[in-house]
Amino acid sequence: MARKKDEALHLRRKSEILAGARTCFIEKGIHQTSMQDICQRSQISPGALYRYFASKQAIIEAIAAAEQQSNADLIDHLKGAKNPTAALLEALPELLDHILDHDFARLMVEISSEASRNPAVQTLFAAIDEQFQHDLNSIFAARRKFGPFGDADQTAHQIFVLLALIDGLVTRAANEDLPPRKQLESMIHKTVQALFK
Amino acid sequence: MARKKDEALHLRRKSEILAGARTCFIEKGIHQTSMQDICQRSQISPGALYRYFASKQAIIEAIAAAEQQSNADLIDHLKGAKNPTAALLEALPELLDHILDHDFARLMVEISSEASRNPAVQTLFAAIDEQFQHDLNSIFAARRKFGPFGDADQTAHQIFVLLALIDGLVTRAANEDLPPRKQLESMIHKTVQALFK
Repeated sequence: MARKKDEALHLRRKSEILAGARTCFIEKGIHQTSMQDICQRSQISPGALYRYFASKQAIIEAIAAAEQQSNADLIDHLKGAKNPTAALLEALPELLDHILDHDFARLMVEISSEASRNPAVQTLFAAIDEQFQHDLNSIFAARRKFGPFGDADQTAHQIFVLLALIDGLVTRAANEDLPPRKQLESMIHKTVQALFK
Repeated sequence: MARKKDEALHLRRKSEILAGARTCFIEKGIHQTSMQDICQRSQISPGALYRYFASKQAIIEAIAAAEQQSNADLIDHLKGAKNPTAALLEALPELLDHILDHDFARLMVEISSEASRNPAVQTLFAAIDEQFQHDLNSIFAARRKFGPFGDADQTAHQIFVLLALIDGLVTRAANEDLPPRKQLESMIHKTVQALFK
């Protein structure tokens, strides 16, 4: 019982530190954020912080893991569906909730900036993107069994354009006011639908 | 006659320096590039370089001006057209030549990275983007006179998604191998066509 309580406390602490680190990264930039900044923001002592995360890199890796999990959730949803295009369109509101969130978008822009000078971060996020691209390709390529959906190459190009659109939406969400959500969603819905037709 | 020759030489030199600076920016990053690096790359003395560009900021401004001109060229093309959607689709191959060029895309990514820590660069490129967005909005809003093209808000949302797609394609072109050009172009054509329908 005590053990369970400890674990719950540990997880809560960890998620508080991550939230504090995210805020620092967004406000100051990743490069400019020190472990000391993260301690102050999360109201935790340096000794305690290092029990959770040995370095800033470890914190970035935890952020990457969360991103990977979010991709995996979408992949699971699509995998279970008979028609992946319909399933993707169905998941679109949730996907947009995720990528158009201002703090998330700001964080992703900071990560791109950090990746441009930090090869470890570059490699980490490139691998996650490649995995996502690969998983999407497998799912959408498999649907060719069910009808005339073009060849495997075409699938790869559709996924490429979809991911480019997502990247671009994240950048815009970080830097400018978004159009009203409902209208934006219907516009993206129409675009993605046409892309996979 | 001598004067004309001088002007031609001046322009050639200027464009050689800009090409050298672009290469440095792509290879080392803008922040890490010194005026000395640009001198070496352009095979020009510091004294001569400063006659053309007083600072690295002035070089970035010249790159921004070229980008603004390229936007203005597209706007001119669309302005002259009866149907701006058809004109945009017609201009798509040239637009893609521009934004999918690997060096151009790398340069734009370096500029985003520089903008994240240099407010002058941020302001400069944000203004160019805002102008482009505004001009596109005016053109596509005007076509509503010619038929049932939705309301002004809808136009703004279409432009927003178009620009997000362009941003995302630039990022992808900078970081990974592109699908074969012809297929990619036809995929983007289909997507943009659906977006403006």
